[in-house]
Amino acid sequence: MGTTQRRAGRPRTAVLDRRRIGEAALELVDETGDFTLPELARRLGVQTGSLYHHVDGRAGVIELLREQISNQMDPTPLDRHPWDVAMGAFFRSYRAVFAAHPRVVPLLTTATIRSPKVIAAYDKMAAQLADSGIPTSRAMEILTAMENFVIGSALDLAAPEVMWEIPEGVEAPHLAAALAAQSTSTDRAERAFEVGMATLLAAVRAEAAAPR
Amino acid sequence: MGTTQRRAGRPRTAVLDRRRIGEAALELVDETGDFTLPELARRLGVQTGSLYHHVDGRAGVIELLREQISNQMDPTPLDRHPWDVAMGAFFRSYRAVFAAHPRVVPLLTTATIRSPKVIAAYDKMAAQLADSGIPTSRAMEILTAMENFVIGSALDLAAPEVMWEIPEGVEAPHLAAALAAQSTSTDRAERAFEVGMATLLAAVRAEAAAPR
Repeated sequence: MGTTQRRAGRPRTAVLDRRRIGEAALELVDETGDFTLPELARRLGVQTGSLYHHVDGRAGVIELLREQISNQMDPTPLDRHPWDVAMGAFFRSYRAVFAAHPRVVPLLTTATIRSPKVIAAYDKMAAQLADSGIPTSRAMEILTAMENFVIGSALDLAAPEVMWEIPEGVEAPHLAAALAAQSTSTDRAERAFEVGMATLLAAVRAEAAAPR
Repeated sequence: MGTTQRRAGRPRTAVLDRRRIGEAALELVDETGDFTLPELARRLGVQTGSLYHHVDGRAGVIELLREQISNQMDPTPLDRHPWDVAMGAFFRSYRAVFAAHPRVVPLLTTATIRSPKVIAAYDKMAAQLADSGIPTSRAMEILTAMENFVIGSALDLAAPEVMWEIPEGVEAPHLAAALAAQSTSTDRAERAFEVGMATLLAAVRAEAAAPR
């Protein structure tokens, strides 16, 4: 999986680089939900073969998408303390970026992660969890559970303000009451995210504080 | 949004119906991440115009996708008691169905829900939360937070067994230790889901039990 960067040594290299390919792929996925290498080449005005001088096929382009996305995240909160403040702030930025690119989500969540930036962020979170007293064997399941929640919350943030519409003739009195009683639709997604994130962080905090 | 079902009154109606359209749309999205009405018509071997006798354009097809997905969920756990057992079991089935169709996720999560089956399931959950003592004003944010977690977990279930691969030359000792210490990769996604679901249900249980 090593060779993701290769030098073409041809004039084209000047105009075609990994960043430009990643940007074009992100546009394509935002618009159509997917990409193919020929579509991507067409958008960039190059031959499909030229792409292979820069990326390792489809999997390589998916990693470029991941880099595009992770470049937009703010990793600086991960140097803050305590860990729960750091992770809460990082995951907020994580959610905002995916919410702006909801259609990229299934491509990234179903492909192996090799992006050094993403790996660096998770390495910091793993270090913080270890420092807080969480057993190493628990770190991945905690981080994965949180990430699952954040990914789902990003999709929810990209959802319409009115998420539910009970058609005429459909009886749903309890749901109707719950919808009528919820906070205003503009902060609907915010509230659900904050509630869930606070719950998950509190559980980890309790585990970290428990005597062992 | 009422008229989602219209009768064509033409021979074609015999072969083209909402179920067939929904099935074809699901296949198309599973394969390509999206659909257009012309592509869908081509796959069904009909004119694009014929689709409009059965569905209300793109939004109508998205609701058919939602029906296809919700038909595969098992709503029977929602009649069980207590509520936390019911919701845990329902959300397990919910996760399994979305995990089998990860590319449908961003289409459904970003479109208003009008499907009577989905509405019925959420009405039951809203009723159970109210019975358990949760204030009506809290129901939607709790259900949304849980759903966000379940949707993210479904995408994680659809992920490769080896989700992380630290490239040569990249230093990530804490992440590497956490990966080495996690439970086997086959139940990686299960563990993360059970951890998160248990945490969220426990928080709701504690809130329901709290004196008011």
